[in-house]
Amino acid sequence: MFFKSISVIGSGSWGTALAQVFSEKFEQVFLWGRSEEVVSNINEKRENIKYLKGIKLRENIHASTDLKKVFRESDIIVVAVPTQHIRDVLKDIDFPVDKPVISASKGIEIDTLKLISDVIFETLKIDRKLIFALSGPSFAKEVALGLPTAVTLGGEISIGEKLQMALNTQSFRLYLNEDITGVQIGGAVKNVIAIATGASDGLGLGNNARAGLITRGLYEMTKVAKIFGGKPQTLYGLSGMGDLVLTATGELSRNRKFGFLIGKGLSVEKALEEVGQVVEGVKTVKALKKLMEKNDVELPISEVVYRVVYEGFSPKEAVKILMSRQPKKELL
Amino acid sequence: MFFKSISVIGSGSWGTALAQVFSEKFEQVFLWGRSEEVVSNINEKRENIKYLKGIKLRENIHASTDLKKVFRESDIIVVAVPTQHIRDVLKDIDFPVDKPVISASKGIEIDTLKLISDVIFETLKIDRKLIFALSGPSFAKEVALGLPTAVTLGGEISIGEKLQMALNTQSFRLYLNEDITGVQIGGAVKNVIAIATGASDGLGLGNNARAGLITRGLYEMTKVAKIFGGKPQTLYGLSGMGDLVLTATGELSRNRKFGFLIGKGLSVEKALEEVGQVVEGVKTVKALKKLMEKNDVELPISEVVYRVVYEGFSPKEAVKILMSRQPKKELL
Repeated sequence: MFFKSISVIGSGSWGTALAQVFSEKFEQVFLWGRSEEVVSNINEKRENIKYLKGIKLRENIHASTDLKKVFRESDIIVVAVPTQHIRDVLKDIDFPVDKPVISASKGIEIDTLKLISDVIFETLKIDRKLIFALSGPSFAKEVALGLPTAVTLGGEISIGEKLQMALNTQSFRLYLNEDITGVQIGGAVKNVIAIATGASDGLGLGNNARAGLITRGLYEMTKVAKIFGGKPQTLYGLSGMGDLVLTATGELSRNRKFGFLIGKGLSVEKALEEVGQVVEGVKTVKALKKLMEKNDVELPISEVVYRVVYEGFSPKEAVKILMSRQPKKELL
Repeated sequence: MFFKSISVIGSGSWGTALAQVFSEKFEQVFLWGRSEEVVSNINEKRENIKYLKGIKLRENIHASTDLKKVFRESDIIVVAVPTQHIRDVLKDIDFPVDKPVISASKGIEIDTLKLISDVIFETLKIDRKLIFALSGPSFAKEVALGLPTAVTLGGEISIGEKLQMALNTQSFRLYLNEDITGVQIGGAVKNVIAIATGASDGLGLGNNARAGLITRGLYEMTKVAKIFGGKPQTLYGLSGMGDLVLTATGELSRNRKFGFLIGKGLSVEKALEEVGQVVEGVKTVKALKKLMEKNDVELPISEVVYRVVYEGFSPKEAVKILMSRQPKKELL
């Protein structure tokens, strides 16, 4: 397999940042977007003014609104559209796809409780071993600026190694992991834990509490991985712990901000209004609640986040519930 | 076993904070310190002005400079003196000790490359199953203020369960883990990783780089655990990941500050001068270097921290070395 060109599907901040990284090594990078305005800005002004302002995009990035064309004309496809829209976007590809498709989106399809790799498999005519998932601690802006970033590429190893060689740059480092299922769990569940750590910070509970929540939250992630048939171990890597640390301690996360506002005493509605953008964790925790019930698994932090968001519990009550559970062995 | 009284050996900030927590549930808490001044301040002014200013200590905390007395008169001993002094302090106890001794200190005895539990075993006349290690994300001040904190208690399970019941409070939560060796690794190695993340932040490399370093640093910790005969798995808990996240992202850590100053371009000497206190990681990385050589194990982050601290490498060169390593599988 020789890769000369690559397409990124989705011209939000993440898709655009990835296109910029790939443009270092690939001759041609296609960037698909639905919005005529974004696409023409990229092609004419070399900038994604709406989603990644201030980054000068390289000349070999070609934006397009023609999905079939970018699918056909490239050797690798990277999907970076919002998770809940992936099925809808990909359904237009009615021809067989015989090249690697990498999901760079994060999360679970809420309606179906399915992972993105499964959504891709169900939607495209494609061999499973051509589907990959890329995940890890990666704020888009930092990636676009060429700051050092390390992520996990989940999927079949022999093709994966070729992709790794093709995509690796001096600033963007990929680690291979064949557990594609496990690799996709962290990116979804982290948002729920970030709400919890945000609330803890909003309540002024301190650094110990936050570090404790992150650690026990990671353990919850491993339980979710098991439900999906992934390896708990995978969550200790970049796609799990790495992304969790980034989201739960960085300042930029919407989920953390939402939690913080709730911790400060705002109602769920007011906090959502204040954040003003989609707070993924609010949806994800609903999916986790279903998973808990269906599989009879305890996820104590997700459980209290659910109660606070959907059942009117106060964050203070939530803390009490967590701290007064029966003392336990540290299961890992 | 019934525990009425407890002694904390060491009246620094950590020992004093622990005494304060224990005083919620124990009738008598003895707090040993070498300094007459600190001891009399605690007994007369109910405050450790030197090391834990502003916290009103409970009346049932009795400070003392008489080590043998506090060892004899309590049912549990908690050791919280600086790691490199433990052997020296405990050597005065010349009688058999038939009660649990919990190490709450962190680190490796640098001269011998030994864990504290082994130093205690070698120094006291005591059964190994009475030795425990307490470790986790726990800034002393937050513990003393009664903010929620979760830590791991490593050691034999049946006595451990009794200790857990005795020490657990509404704000201070203990998780049991029988891998006492693994429980002690995180507290030592985290300081080296914190130097690395500090340097990364000082260089302005961003949140992705920091989260990546923390994740790969955790993996290094698991390798060190293996060298000592501990379980890698243990490091994914509070004593490993939890403490690492606290130290590598919190503002209060000396090791992180030292790294940050180096990242900003200060020399090692100037940075040490500026921090003005012991930077444990500088010593620990020397011990790790010995361990790497003796056991033929690669610890890439510790290796570059060693080179920067002891061999005059610039932090920028260190980053280059890390980012240009051969692409790998994500081993976990």
